[in-house]
Amino acid sequence: MNFPAIIADKKFGRALTGEQIEAFVRGAADKTVPDYQLSALLMAIRLNGMDARETADLTLAMARSGDMLHPDVGGIPVDKHSTGGVGDTTTLVLVPLCAACGAKIAKMSGRGLGHTGGTVDKMESIGMRTSLPEADFLRQVREIGCAVVGQSAELAPADKTLYALRDTTATVDSLPLIASSIMSKKLASGAQGIVLDVKVGSGAIMPDYAGSLALAKTMVDIGTRAGRNVSALLTGMDEPLGSHVGNMLEVKDAVEILRGESAGPLLTVSLALGAQLLTVGGVAANPEEGEAMLRRALADGSGLEKLRQLIRAQGGDESVCDHPEALADAPIVRDVAAPRAGVIARMDTTLLGYAAQELGAGRRQKTDQIDPRVGFIMRCRVGDNLSAGAPICTVYAANEDTFAGAQQMILRAVEIGDAPTPPSRLIYAMVTPQGVTEY
Amino acid sequence: MNFPAIIADKKFGRALTGEQIEAFVRGAADKTVPDYQLSALLMAIRLNGMDARETADLTLAMARSGDMLHPDVGGIPVDKHSTGGVGDTTTLVLVPLCAACGAKIAKMSGRGLGHTGGTVDKMESIGMRTSLPEADFLRQVREIGCAVVGQSAELAPADKTLYALRDTTATVDSLPLIASSIMSKKLASGAQGIVLDVKVGSGAIMPDYAGSLALAKTMVDIGTRAGRNVSALLTGMDEPLGSHVGNMLEVKDAVEILRGESAGPLLTVSLALGAQLLTVGGVAANPEEGEAMLRRALADGSGLEKLRQLIRAQGGDESVCDHPEALADAPIVRDVAAPRAGVIARMDTTLLGYAAQELGAGRRQKTDQIDPRVGFIMRCRVGDNLSAGAPICTVYAANEDTFAGAQQMILRAVEIGDAPTPPSRLIYAMVTPQGVTEY
Repeated sequence: MNFPAIIADKKFGRALTGEQIEAFVRGAADKTVPDYQLSALLMAIRLNGMDARETADLTLAMARSGDMLHPDVGGIPVDKHSTGGVGDTTTLVLVPLCAACGAKIAKMSGRGLGHTGGTVDKMESIGMRTSLPEADFLRQVREIGCAVVGQSAELAPADKTLYALRDTTATVDSLPLIASSIMSKKLASGAQGIVLDVKVGSGAIMPDYAGSLALAKTMVDIGTRAGRNVSALLTGMDEPLGSHVGNMLEVKDAVEILRGESAGPLLTVSLALGAQLLTVGGVAANPEEGEAMLRRALADGSGLEKLRQLIRAQGGDESVCDHPEALADAPIVRDVAAPRAGVIARMDTTLLGYAAQELGAGRRQKTDQIDPRVGFIMRCRVGDNLSAGAPICTVYAANEDTFAGAQQMILRAVEIGDAPTPPSRLIYAMVTPQGVTEY
Repeated sequence: MNFPAIIADKKFGRALTGEQIEAFVRGAADKTVPDYQLSALLMAIRLNGMDARETADLTLAMARSGDMLHPDVGGIPVDKHSTGGVGDTTTLVLVPLCAACGAKIAKMSGRGLGHTGGTVDKMESIGMRTSLPEADFLRQVREIGCAVVGQSAELAPADKTLYALRDTTATVDSLPLIASSIMSKKLASGAQGIVLDVKVGSGAIMPDYAGSLALAKTMVDIGTRAGRNVSALLTGMDEPLGSHVGNMLEVKDAVEILRGESAGPLLTVSLALGAQLLTVGGVAANPEEGEAMLRRALADGSGLEKLRQLIRAQGGDESVCDHPEALADAPIVRDVAAPRAGVIARMDTTLLGYAAQELGAGRRQKTDQIDPRVGFIMRCRVGDNLSAGAPICTVYAANEDTFAGAQQMILRAVEIGDAPTPPSRLIYAMVTPQGVTEY
């Protein structure tokens, strides 16, 4: 296969054939194609795009570049993926609730590479193991209905090569490359039911609603072509989803929700995603029935009990289920006060993420250590009225320096105006193989 | 300097700053920026372009990435560059003629990397040295008015890195990259007067007239911004320029022209380019006066005498000036016959170039050895009437295999039709800092 000719075809805006895509992915996986040719092709894909057939071919080729799992979990294996946000710990809410309803969730989560920690980091903040031998992982799903571990390096190795290159060549923001990266790992992991949470807004990977919708449709299309049950929700990221941002703090948020002591947007979105997950997993006939089941599991405490089993099975500190308040503890605990009275007009969610990173809740480089204690709890949402000096949020910091840095970013990120402002939208649309339902 | 941010700016179609371009070129020259980042940027430049200011900044940065020469040649140093064609040996015609008129030509020529040999290969085919110590090179220009050597590796080293990458990443066909590659070497070599021969047609680097015109205007603009005297001619490459294609054969063509035994398109274009060269070199007041001087040097034999001095000075076999027919000698000399009667409707010049390569006149890879004897002499031009079986060309081949391969390509390349067809255009336009004159 003549690799410069493949690059040239994409440069001229032509669709690549299945064989060309296969050659490209194989070369990325076994490192026989030099990085400088791969990155030229990635830029050509970023600028000239790929059609639906090419994107599906790319995803399948990447999935097949390593092991393809067929996990025996005693039911239909289901998984959920989020394109990533701030204060977004839906996994720790919906996985226990769905497992309590009978779903079989064999979940592989990424480590946080953005400004805040990922699910794996949050679990490790309460001592949970996130790397299990495959047999133990599957047995746990069969026995308690759920297990959550870090992404295996053997799945979709071509993605590993391409992802590292994209990060350093300004080719992250490409719809076909994002979609194929996410879906290749889901297809390889053997998930039969897949629910996608595609973010919309100031903290989202795609810049606008149209981009997020296109990404959701593309990923649902890929999964459907591969014979999986897939649906996606477009959910808002114009401010942090949950009030808590930070690793131990987000575990606290999830526990308090499962204890019925707290509600709000994080619960709303978790129930919506969970209802989809029960549907694609064949546990509920439709999302309405799914949501009713989840609400029962929340009300009767079986969701909280499932979280306790999950934490215990993976070696974590289950006492957090009884004393979540113990998770809010850092050397400095101090409010950031509103500099003036007014209405919260807008939040720059990405900048709030950088504030969490500044505190030590996320990584700048892969090798950075996360501080599990730090973060902040938002005390207001978009549209709220604040008096001057009222708390915008409470910061949990390791020292004065990081507090000061984070405070500055938070004050820049939270815009106070005067006009009445409606609350942020939470759920924009649902995408299934049958089409798009906008709300 | 954050290199991914530079790539991202060009990806979004923004103009790069002088500092960003400087960082990119320095990184290419000293290899501190990895190839995979350079190639992503090259593809972004190929697809999103560069404006005139960026292209000039890129060219100057590349020129300054190595030595900047200020050659003492006892006059205004002038040089000519062609974007490359088939049967195009204008250098061997116009350099002696211009030097005979008093120009000071310190010429650095590329080795042929396309389908046919470059000027350096043609000179080596008659035993000339093409690598001279700098002092000898300059003394020769002072003494006889001309010297022609291979490109020095020390000039514009950033171009060397980028050119090698472009070749393997399908980013050769980019106007700002072509223009900066050519002009950076001319600026670094210290040429004060520069004449550019930009080809138009089926064998040209740019696909159409508009592209060739844009390239010429860009290069003239770059040179003018750098304070050099520059002009360009757009000349036709819809068929081989001279009738002879091959290394020794093209020397034969040039000698026969200087002996006054032959004329035709190669002479016409050489006189036009030479007239420009005398003008930018301050030897002639304008191209009309320049052309009259060149015609005198042709008629009185001083051009041929200058070629003899040039060959002698660089250690070649000057007897070719007296017996050019001795240069047409190969194991197989055989005509390719017209398969039917008709009019030559069209030639695929690129394919004719591949036929010459097939015979061994050009290189497939950098390390290939050229066979100086092989090539072909065209016996017809576009618009000519041929009877069935009349010779299209005479092939000079090393063996039956390469003859058969080349014959097949030549028959595919030369299209015979029935309608009367006008001869190919030779000179399309002149581009100077004052504007474009179309003919």
